[in-house]
Amino acid sequence: MHSIAELSTLIEEGIFNAGFPQQPTGLYDPARYILSVGGKRIRPLLALMGAQVFADDVKPHLPVALAMEVFHNFTLVHDDIMDNAPLRRGKQTVHEKWDVHTAILSGDAMMIQSYVLLAGGPSNALMPLIDMFNKTALAVCEGQQDDMDFEKSEEVEIDAYLEMIAKKTSVLLGCSLYCGAISAGANEDQAALLYEAGLKLGISFQIQDDILDTYGDSSFGKQTGGDIARNKKTILFLMARDLANETDCALLLRLYHDSASSESEKIAAVRNIFDKYAVKEHAESLMARYYEESRAALSSLHSTKNGVDPLLKLFDQVFTRTT
Amino acid sequence: MHSIAELSTLIEEGIFNAGFPQQPTGLYDPARYILSVGGKRIRPLLALMGAQVFADDVKPHLPVALAMEVFHNFTLVHDDIMDNAPLRRGKQTVHEKWDVHTAILSGDAMMIQSYVLLAGGPSNALMPLIDMFNKTALAVCEGQQDDMDFEKSEEVEIDAYLEMIAKKTSVLLGCSLYCGAISAGANEDQAALLYEAGLKLGISFQIQDDILDTYGDSSFGKQTGGDIARNKKTILFLMARDLANETDCALLLRLYHDSASSESEKIAAVRNIFDKYAVKEHAESLMARYYEESRAALSSLHSTKNGVDPLLKLFDQVFTRTT
Repeated sequence: MHSIAELSTLIEEGIFNAGFPQQPTGLYDPARYILSVGGKRIRPLLALMGAQVFADDVKPHLPVALAMEVFHNFTLVHDDIMDNAPLRRGKQTVHEKWDVHTAILSGDAMMIQSYVLLAGGPSNALMPLIDMFNKTALAVCEGQQDDMDFEKSEEVEIDAYLEMIAKKTSVLLGCSLYCGAISAGANEDQAALLYEAGLKLGISFQIQDDILDTYGDSSFGKQTGGDIARNKKTILFLMARDLANETDCALLLRLYHDSASSESEKIAAVRNIFDKYAVKEHAESLMARYYEESRAALSSLHSTKNGVDPLLKLFDQVFTRTT
Repeated sequence: MHSIAELSTLIEEGIFNAGFPQQPTGLYDPARYILSVGGKRIRPLLALMGAQVFADDVKPHLPVALAMEVFHNFTLVHDDIMDNAPLRRGKQTVHEKWDVHTAILSGDAMMIQSYVLLAGGPSNALMPLIDMFNKTALAVCEGQQDDMDFEKSEEVEIDAYLEMIAKKTSVLLGCSLYCGAISAGANEDQAALLYEAGLKLGISFQIQDDILDTYGDSSFGKQTGGDIARNKKTILFLMARDLANETDCALLLRLYHDSASSESEKIAAVRNIFDKYAVKEHAESLMARYYEESRAALSSLHSTKNGVDPLLKLFDQVFTRTT
């Protein structure tokens, strides 16, 4: 069995080119650039660790793992255009470094390349791999659309919000585990459990993201309250809106529409309402539930070649962050 | 065997929804819109006719045929953004009717949906279908990149131009015939001949496009000379540049950089140079060569179930247009 460090080395070596042709450079250089900018590579790592549950040799499954990372980076390139984001991981986004047209076309080529990589996995697994990848890729687009629609809507329900974050980010974590496992010979039931584990880990991670943005440890220089400042409808906001009495709810909505008050005053006032209704604790409890369900799905996998202990350890690492 | 009219009806019925989910409408309505705007549906028709060479029942191959049309329309949605085109087939383009962000994301979903459709073909053909489709899809992106690069370059060679038009439009015609045939049980050699036929038909069609824009029949209201007015580097321009003496070449380049003279004077002056060096005839001869090679590839297919006569007839129809 390979350690996480060994798997990470395999991924970094593979992602360096990811099979992109050299020419035309205007098309492929931006793809190489965004892939070189880094990131945690959590998706290919999940894919290889999912494969390692069922097989000792992970190398045949590396293309499938890289497909997940290339697809994820394609979504970043296009989402950054839609979000008008100038920076990604501290570096210029593709549409800033080049232009919007380049970011569109290079992103398209990256998406296609993720299918090229996927087809480089074991041929007897191609059908379930393609089916899961197609389903996931469409869900990711739907999640991005829902996210943009929600920004304009006053009526977002908590269930719809959870479905949106699941589609936008978590399904690809589930897909990564599923595809790694299927590639390595898992049966459909086994792979489905890994999918569920990845999906729920992702949802719990996104809830944690919302909590940390407002209540995280700011001693590492990351400013807290950014979501409130940008009027972002997080799980904390939605819970507070649903729990608050009429007066507090109206105040919360006014604060979210008010551009007059100072940013720090606004953050303090919104946190005040959050605290009054203990939404941090409510969100933490929801997060913990998804996390426990995620571990339970993993733990219910029995009689595999190498077991799920390394994955359980990775899940714990992902979960016990403070920023 | 189905007639072209029967196949077209099958395609129109299928494309009406093309399997897109209803929700979210912000994502899928633009896809349904651009697919409803029409077009000649030449790609799915080629796919079904390619299938019909080898099988009587074309219905199992309809998803594969629709994949070609959905992919083609995805490229239109994204290309129209890059070309700042307000109209497509006389109707508003997606980024005009909605906005650029919608056109990016809906286009992405269309591309994924084309893989969903492709995976709906016969499962034993999935690997060669995906391989050809991946190769073609990347080539189409490369062709679009080359086209944009060429617009800024003074040094485009005729061979590079022919490769660009092949990638941008012709490979998908070859791919359509190939995939229809493979889906219907053709072997690799047979499908490769159909690919070659589609590729070369496409190149000859694109050369014809360049010729008709300058020398076409304007009695149907289509104005001739638009490419010259827009300084487009067509095969006629490239041939004239290569054939002309130093003085005429300099004049041609000046006309292509000059925004002072009136449009009609400019078109007349450029046509004058084209005529002097008989570039229409040179281009027609090149077009005819590709067309003959295309027919020859088709005709070399022997011992198939239903023969290639309907395809030869379709090729002739495509070729004998005057606008």
